[in-house]
Amino acid sequence: MFKEQNTIKDKAAIVGIGETQFAKQLPASETELACKAISAALKDAGVSPSEVDGLASYTMESTSDFELAKNLGFGDITFFGQIGHGGGGGPATLGMLAMAIATGQCQVGVAWRSRKRGNPESRVWANKAASAELVTAANWSRPWGVLRPVDEVSLITQRYMHETGCTRQHLANVAVSIRKMANNNPRAMMYDKPLTTEDYMAARWISEPLCLYDNCLESDGALAVVLVSAERARDCNSPPVYLHAFGQGISQQSHSMVNFYSENPLQGPSWTCARQLFRYSDIQAQDIDVAQFYDAFTPLIPFSLEAYGFCGHGEGAAFTEDGGLDINGKLPCNTSGGGLSEAYVHGFNLITEGVRQLRGQSCNQVREAETCLVTASTSVPTSAVILRR
Amino acid sequence: MFKEQNTIKDKAAIVGIGETQFAKQLPASETELACKAISAALKDAGVSPSEVDGLASYTMESTSDFELAKNLGFGDITFFGQIGHGGGGGPATLGMLAMAIATGQCQVGVAWRSRKRGNPESRVWANKAASAELVTAANWSRPWGVLRPVDEVSLITQRYMHETGCTRQHLANVAVSIRKMANNNPRAMMYDKPLTTEDYMAARWISEPLCLYDNCLESDGALAVVLVSAERARDCNSPPVYLHAFGQGISQQSHSMVNFYSENPLQGPSWTCARQLFRYSDIQAQDIDVAQFYDAFTPLIPFSLEAYGFCGHGEGAAFTEDGGLDINGKLPCNTSGGGLSEAYVHGFNLITEGVRQLRGQSCNQVREAETCLVTASTSVPTSAVILRR
Repeated sequence: MFKEQNTIKDKAAIVGIGETQFAKQLPASETELACKAISAALKDAGVSPSEVDGLASYTMESTSDFELAKNLGFGDITFFGQIGHGGGGGPATLGMLAMAIATGQCQVGVAWRSRKRGNPESRVWANKAASAELVTAANWSRPWGVLRPVDEVSLITQRYMHETGCTRQHLANVAVSIRKMANNNPRAMMYDKPLTTEDYMAARWISEPLCLYDNCLESDGALAVVLVSAERARDCNSPPVYLHAFGQGISQQSHSMVNFYSENPLQGPSWTCARQLFRYSDIQAQDIDVAQFYDAFTPLIPFSLEAYGFCGHGEGAAFTEDGGLDINGKLPCNTSGGGLSEAYVHGFNLITEGVRQLRGQSCNQVREAETCLVTASTSVPTSAVILRR
Repeated sequence: MFKEQNTIKDKAAIVGIGETQFAKQLPASETELACKAISAALKDAGVSPSEVDGLASYTMESTSDFELAKNLGFGDITFFGQIGHGGGGGPATLGMLAMAIATGQCQVGVAWRSRKRGNPESRVWANKAASAELVTAANWSRPWGVLRPVDEVSLITQRYMHETGCTRQHLANVAVSIRKMANNNPRAMMYDKPLTTEDYMAARWISEPLCLYDNCLESDGALAVVLVSAERARDCNSPPVYLHAFGQGISQQSHSMVNFYSENPLQGPSWTCARQLFRYSDIQAQDIDVAQFYDAFTPLIPFSLEAYGFCGHGEGAAFTEDGGLDINGKLPCNTSGGGLSEAYVHGFNLITEGVRQLRGQSCNQVREAETCLVTASTSVPTSAVILRR
């Protein structure tokens, strides 16, 4: 039988976080942005670049591991890995590093995401992803006009509304709750732009039933975290935030980007991921103080509330009522403004905000937050982590 | 301090291997080839596809994890990861799965490689890799005519010859020794094509000092392995081959594809990898019974002999003399014919051959082989595993 002491539970800790500015367009290259974010994270941790020996990133990352190692003066790297599926990947970069640290494959790990929408480098990678997808799942939907991620999510949202009674008001609740978080966060791209339900209802369609405010931002920026073993964490500058549990999920018969063809299209990869996440976790859904849910689109929040067990199936929409996601709500969510209102960097800003909450340093601090769930997209092969103080 | 019982040592075992035919051109798609190889590996193990919950592959793999899961009827997948850098990746797919199994993130892992040189799918990925590289290291060499991998390896080989006294005869020793292995392996593409030193010396240059026979084959084909926990392995059809140790390496200041700009260009990623590989290993270089070295080009064999400690620096060429790599030599190498003479599938056939050796099923069986080293390319961010019976 598998011995529970062999899990990665609390064996690695995040001891450094770093970010660049977020904006619609930044002049620096993706490599430069990555270097800035990683340097800031190492400084935050009080760890020398020469100690770094583990690296994890998204497959769509355009800055290579060896390029960073050269530019930043890392030591000999003894673990490096990548994780596919775009927005499904963020927490998995942490999970991979935690596995490597827990098993002695490396000692100081760095995970990062650097992104520029307008950069030709990025376009190469976007084209690659698109081409790979074209030969598979998308063959069945592209010819019928399901072209953009938002079109795929709008279809599944329509089904969700039909089955559960979710309305546009519920999606507005998500957009407005998360925007309020951004309005307290000077680093958020939407810091000085309040959003009301009226604004939401008056906005143009992007892909019905999803309007402008159901969609995340388009951002340039980079972020990084530094992970070390729990023992090493005691000697770092910043208080350790432990990686308590890690899950990934591809559900049976699921496609990327969405899950139209499986028996229950409303219960996809995140449901699989949640089972693995909580399997060896001492912290269950009812013990989570604050959540950072991947929010490329508003309906992913009710989907995630259901997947990770904060409510029953079909109850995610109602959970958003009466400020359920607000700072004093049932489950404070996306407290930096998330992808909808802080910046869209494939969910990596959800990780750094999770760390800030457990350090007591958030702009929207949840009082005495001890545990934080960080998830990736519900629509693709996905991942999640539980962080604890 | 890190506890050695937390390493992955012997915690996972390869219990199934599967391969398609190897040929210059195969009619089936890469997805179809991957499915065939994986099905064969599962059958070999006596494991049902529905038990598979972990997947690892190269980033250049064009068949996606979820596509395989759908086509083959896998269960819910709870671990999936990828490894970059082309021929540096093979052993790392095993290492990643072993980490995931050892830490409870999955129970039955599949690693695979499927490749068709002539396939438009593959070209997309090759272009992607080329584009990413162009913005970085290759900026410094492409304009001077260093266009192909063989050009990069020929430069470093020239330097190696200059420094160590390695001659073309030594490279011929490698090509001829490995070809003899293929001549005993009916599945090898070069099975019925003997090679003499005279043939070698008369061959045309590809990139001086490297001639035709210093280069690997171009092959279509797919391979797969199944890994499970050491406990689960006892219930499988085939005798378990334990993953004893795993290493990866990016050396300081190293570039991909080669290591021209570092202090010692002749000691690159494989040297870093070897240190990590042997760090927690009970099996050291002198205990290795048979080796499968990544052999896209003949000089990578002397480089690897030195990197993994089978001889001192500069002694790799002499090691090939007097049939040093032959079945009764100092270290029998690439016993299926490797990339040079069986098939070039980014080194994955070295893994399956390593397993056959430890099962006693090789066409060139090393008597009572108990331990096998399998390595990836010396020229890029790399990986290696030690397998044991």
